[in-house]
Amino acid sequence: MAQSFKVVQYGIGPIGQSCLRTILTKNNHIKLVGAIDIDPNRVGKDVSEILGLDAPVGVQVSADAEEVLSRTKPDVVVHTTSSFLARMYDQLVLCAKHGANVISSTEELSYPFDRHPEIAKELDLVARENGVTILGTGVNPGYAMDALALMATGVCNEVRSITINREVDAGLRRLPLQQKVGAGITAEQFAEKKATGMFGHIGLVESIRLIADGLDWSIDRIEEHLDPVISPREVITPFLTVKEGSVAGIHHHAYAYDGEELLLTLDLKMFVGAEDPRDAVKVDGDPPMDLVVRGGIFGDTATVATLINGIPQTFHAQPGLQTVKDVPLVRAFGTR
Amino acid sequence: MAQSFKVVQYGIGPIGQSCLRTILTKNNHIKLVGAIDIDPNRVGKDVSEILGLDAPVGVQVSADAEEVLSRTKPDVVVHTTSSFLARMYDQLVLCAKHGANVISSTEELSYPFDRHPEIAKELDLVARENGVTILGTGVNPGYAMDALALMATGVCNEVRSITINREVDAGLRRLPLQQKVGAGITAEQFAEKKATGMFGHIGLVESIRLIADGLDWSIDRIEEHLDPVISPREVITPFLTVKEGSVAGIHHHAYAYDGEELLLTLDLKMFVGAEDPRDAVKVDGDPPMDLVVRGGIFGDTATVATLINGIPQTFHAQPGLQTVKDVPLVRAFGTR
Repeated sequence: MAQSFKVVQYGIGPIGQSCLRTILTKNNHIKLVGAIDIDPNRVGKDVSEILGLDAPVGVQVSADAEEVLSRTKPDVVVHTTSSFLARMYDQLVLCAKHGANVISSTEELSYPFDRHPEIAKELDLVARENGVTILGTGVNPGYAMDALALMATGVCNEVRSITINREVDAGLRRLPLQQKVGAGITAEQFAEKKATGMFGHIGLVESIRLIADGLDWSIDRIEEHLDPVISPREVITPFLTVKEGSVAGIHHHAYAYDGEELLLTLDLKMFVGAEDPRDAVKVDGDPPMDLVVRGGIFGDTATVATLINGIPQTFHAQPGLQTVKDVPLVRAFGTR
Repeated sequence: MAQSFKVVQYGIGPIGQSCLRTILTKNNHIKLVGAIDIDPNRVGKDVSEILGLDAPVGVQVSADAEEVLSRTKPDVVVHTTSSFLARMYDQLVLCAKHGANVISSTEELSYPFDRHPEIAKELDLVARENGVTILGTGVNPGYAMDALALMATGVCNEVRSITINREVDAGLRRLPLQQKVGAGITAEQFAEKKATGMFGHIGLVESIRLIADGLDWSIDRIEEHLDPVISPREVITPFLTVKEGSVAGIHHHAYAYDGEELLLTLDLKMFVGAEDPRDAVKVDGDPPMDLVVRGGIFGDTATVATLINGIPQTFHAQPGLQTVKDVPLVRAFGTR
């Protein structure tokens, strides 16, 4: 490849800031040309101030996305603003209209064709019209519970069903993740949060649709369940304490059927005190596959990696709205 | 995808016959239109006779590749004739000139740019001129010790080195594989075979070059070693007996350096009596990755799967000589 990409970071919350740090370490391969965020506490500051670096980076945070995109003409925008497609659809369109490819952590963008068919169609159209690629990725959805499973099936002649287990020790993760999974709250509070419909992991359905599309499988029913993991003991993290009998985290699981046949099982546990963190893919097939990432894939770092590592593929892919199954295998980028 | 591909099977030795069996089970997705082989015992026979099937398939084996390709105009040729590129270069050119994409198990084709730069250049040219893709794949090289490792690095921001261990229980494999690894011979016989330079696994160097190219890493020295695995006990397989103290199989290992820095370790053991068969990839990186396929990837079946599963990618890829890192993630194809 031996190519350098001009990149704008769009969204500089915790994940965006980690992206910026990684981008700055790969300055032989990536040139940071802009940073967009609407937070008044960030706007106007040099990126180094946000990251707590000594030397100025020479890139100021701006809230004016249009101005940044027009002026800097990035090859790729690394986009980390929201989990929900409807909220940031305009941002993607703006990037595309400025001729910038986009790689985004937006969970719903990893496979938008099912949940948001109209938006997906429009994004695909605007991307094609402007000759750019829009790609949603991340560690989950985008890798651990979908791309890795598809990869596992690559050596199978027959596949009857796939079971994917991801267990994450939330105690090792940052505070927002521990809060996101409800660590430390009561079962009643968990039930209230669940009732809002805005709680739990976003992406199991996207992962299911991505796998099914990749295998050209028809799915006619998806069941999704969200339960609390109740802590059997007191667990203390650097950020909070989970008492015995209170919520340690989430158990989010989904099942995809064709008729009565169970084809896909996605089982995600993210909780404080997990003793066997891992990512496992079992393929019931010929040959069978029993793949495990021991210790699991460390989400915070890995999410950033999927975004930065996907920059070359996003740049080189065919124009349009793509998914991780449509682009060449994403591997580490700019590591030496 | 929901597409059917016209396929010619080129080479119907053991792997080619397994490909044929798999192709015939996927007849909603693949239409077998021709079969090429030079063995006089096979030529003129219906494919069903070679495979021992009851009902005729309606495709006769022919030694006249040119006639088969002209008449059947396949979308993709599944090519399984030789491990060595120089021996089958003409076959690939013939396919390309007939407008047929080729997916091949030829080990040296998985990454031909280093060992055979001139042939690689010519193949790429003839493929582009004829608007077809030529892709070399297989389980090893092509998946277990290269593509899977690249996939593992996809979630890493930093990669310092990669260690890949593949341990295969040759006792579970077909006779030619047991013979190929020298099971049952003496250490002296092993040394003689090794001296011919035509013994051991083919592909470690190809896998190294594929990973290094995928990561854009510079490698200035590769060390390759081939040692016997001496059996500590008598082992009896359905085909042969390995006595205590005789050769159980091969230990083939290779190391890639940049200066004094060891970047890649590929360690392959294929022997009768292996007690911990597995495929393992360890990435020393940020985050680290510790990926294991427990029980290992069953080579005979998996090699066939990589070829058949790669048919859609080979058909849709950009014209030219491609590698598994250049095409979208190969996953199971035609399983339902």
